[in-house]
Amino acid sequence: MNFLKFILVLFVIYIDSISFAQEPQELKDKYVLVIHGGAGTISKSTLTPELEKEYKDALKEALKCGQNILDTGGLAITAVEAAVKYMEDSPLFNAGKGSVFNHEGYNEMDACIMNGKDLTCGAVAGVTNLKNPIEGARLVKDSSKYVFLYGDGAQEFCLSKGAAYADSSYFFTDFRWKQYQKALEKDTIILDHDTTSLNYNYKALEELEKFGTVGAVALDRYGNLAAATSTGGLTNKEFNRIGDSPIVGAGTYASNRSCAVSCTGKGEFFIRETVARDIAARMEFGNQDLTESGEKTMARLEKKGGSGGFISVDKRGNYIMMFNTKGMYRGVVTNDKKTSVKIY
Amino acid sequence: MNFLKFILVLFVIYIDSISFAQEPQELKDKYVLVIHGGAGTISKSTLTPELEKEYKDALKEALKCGQNILDTGGLAITAVEAAVKYMEDSPLFNAGKGSVFNHEGYNEMDACIMNGKDLTCGAVAGVTNLKNPIEGARLVKDSSKYVFLYGDGAQEFCLSKGAAYADSSYFFTDFRWKQYQKALEKDTIILDHDTTSLNYNYKALEELEKFGTVGAVALDRYGNLAAATSTGGLTNKEFNRIGDSPIVGAGTYASNRSCAVSCTGKGEFFIRETVARDIAARMEFGNQDLTESGEKTMARLEKKGGSGGFISVDKRGNYIMMFNTKGMYRGVVTNDKKTSVKIY
Repeated sequence: MNFLKFILVLFVIYIDSISFAQEPQELKDKYVLVIHGGAGTISKSTLTPELEKEYKDALKEALKCGQNILDTGGLAITAVEAAVKYMEDSPLFNAGKGSVFNHEGYNEMDACIMNGKDLTCGAVAGVTNLKNPIEGARLVKDSSKYVFLYGDGAQEFCLSKGAAYADSSYFFTDFRWKQYQKALEKDTIILDHDTTSLNYNYKALEELEKFGTVGAVALDRYGNLAAATSTGGLTNKEFNRIGDSPIVGAGTYASNRSCAVSCTGKGEFFIRETVARDIAARMEFGNQDLTESGEKTMARLEKKGGSGGFISVDKRGNYIMMFNTKGMYRGVVTNDKKTSVKIY
Repeated sequence: MNFLKFILVLFVIYIDSISFAQEPQELKDKYVLVIHGGAGTISKSTLTPELEKEYKDALKEALKCGQNILDTGGLAITAVEAAVKYMEDSPLFNAGKGSVFNHEGYNEMDACIMNGKDLTCGAVAGVTNLKNPIEGARLVKDSSKYVFLYGDGAQEFCLSKGAAYADSSYFFTDFRWKQYQKALEKDTIILDHDTTSLNYNYKALEELEKFGTVGAVALDRYGNLAAATSTGGLTNKEFNRIGDSPIVGAGTYASNRSCAVSCTGKGEFFIRETVARDIAARMEFGNQDLTESGEKTMARLEKKGGSGGFISVDKRGNYIMMFNTKGMYRGVVTNDKKTSVKIY
């Protein structure tokens, strides 16, 4: 019996060594981190030079957070979480602290994270008091038997696993409050005077709010891909609506077989077109390269009236940052240490 | 100005006639409807002959509901809703009326419907008092600007649009209550005596509950595809967990470009593997046929430890009913009027 056990143990060690050998063990040089801070009707005329600098600085800092991890041999999944967390902590982006006010004055935030290595993923939607929704998504992924949790239940689980709690007051920022007040004020003034401008401004406001999402995709030095997306949701979001950000295959997707994707845009269109999975599926099943996959997916989205953007990096380190809106807060850093951030 | 209007109207009529001409106008003969009532550890030993007959009769009736629509030139989307609705109204399946009791004694039901013609879709999750969650999903699809609504908000919206309300008592069925009681009773007895059997029975029960899902896919006589899925959720479901059923691309998907899919199984695996979209994407981007797509998707799912099944019909009327469990309640009817229902 002991001999049998010994043989079994040897066998297990052998099997283990095979699967171990399949892992890319040695650290390659190449790594890539791409981030976005939302797309929409962002133009030179809507941003002051000071605010533009603030955004760019924040994007650079977010890239640095993820780069530090990748550079020292950390995992893609850790890097995308760190980059998204930084943007969640900034009042500039519609995610985490910077989440826009909804009609009732609180936020329903969504987030999702996915590991391309094994397709494990975690998502939360409709959470109101998690300081970092992306941390919640990571906890669902790592510490639960579930993939997708909602609202109070999601929060209860995440807090029980050590997620940071934040009071509603934490999500109050002067910046967002003024923006909200201005929006209300504008509405009233325009409502009284000009319906044409009303429609125009309504649309602009709606777009700005809808596209408020942050995301990150990365290729680490082991060849692993990962993606993370987080959003503060819609202003005036009704009926506990869930958007594309927390949905695997819609706003977020990662697979080492193809690429990692994070989207921002009108969520409903991204769900119908399974945008994130489509970009990856075109590569995986149709042998299209990343640029072709991205362009064709964008063309379909646009044909249906969908607008927004996405970032993606593939297993070879190619990356794309595509959008059909006026602007998208975005940035990239690779192992050559060159950081590039853009808005328009 | 009036002349300009006249020209514009002519132009609109012209454009309309073009898109009209592109629609397959003439009624073809061919139509297909495939349904499932869940997969799991269903074996001859767990079903009495009487219960087996009840299940088969219910499947036949559900098929008839959808067939009547398809036969008379109705749309695939109408047929799948009708078939799923019938199964929701039956106490036999874990969806609608037959939903299993959860730990607190109420249900959180999920449903999704998708039209392959234009990729429009609607989904609800965590609803407790909609008589037919699939009707709710259809209303979200047709009457809201959203795709995916949760819980109270979803219910508020659906009821405001005329969805049928059902009191919690409606979902009380002797059948399910006894099953639930038996489960509790068994647990206690086994807990006191034998941990091996406990694990076994726990697993069997868990599987049966997890796989309780109903679904339908159809090809109509215009060449349109559609899919619908509805589930009564998990017993003891915690933390407002959302499964794969209401997620476009995971448990439900339809596109006229490829096929319509409805899944049943351990939801988390189906989300990670984007099962429904993958079956369709292999056809669409990889030129695989439906059987190959199904088999390869199933192989991947199985490799990760996922179990369950799916039904699918493609644009040519080919269909598959695949599962890696002991059984799956399933049935098919085509324009030759032959109905086939199977369990094991």
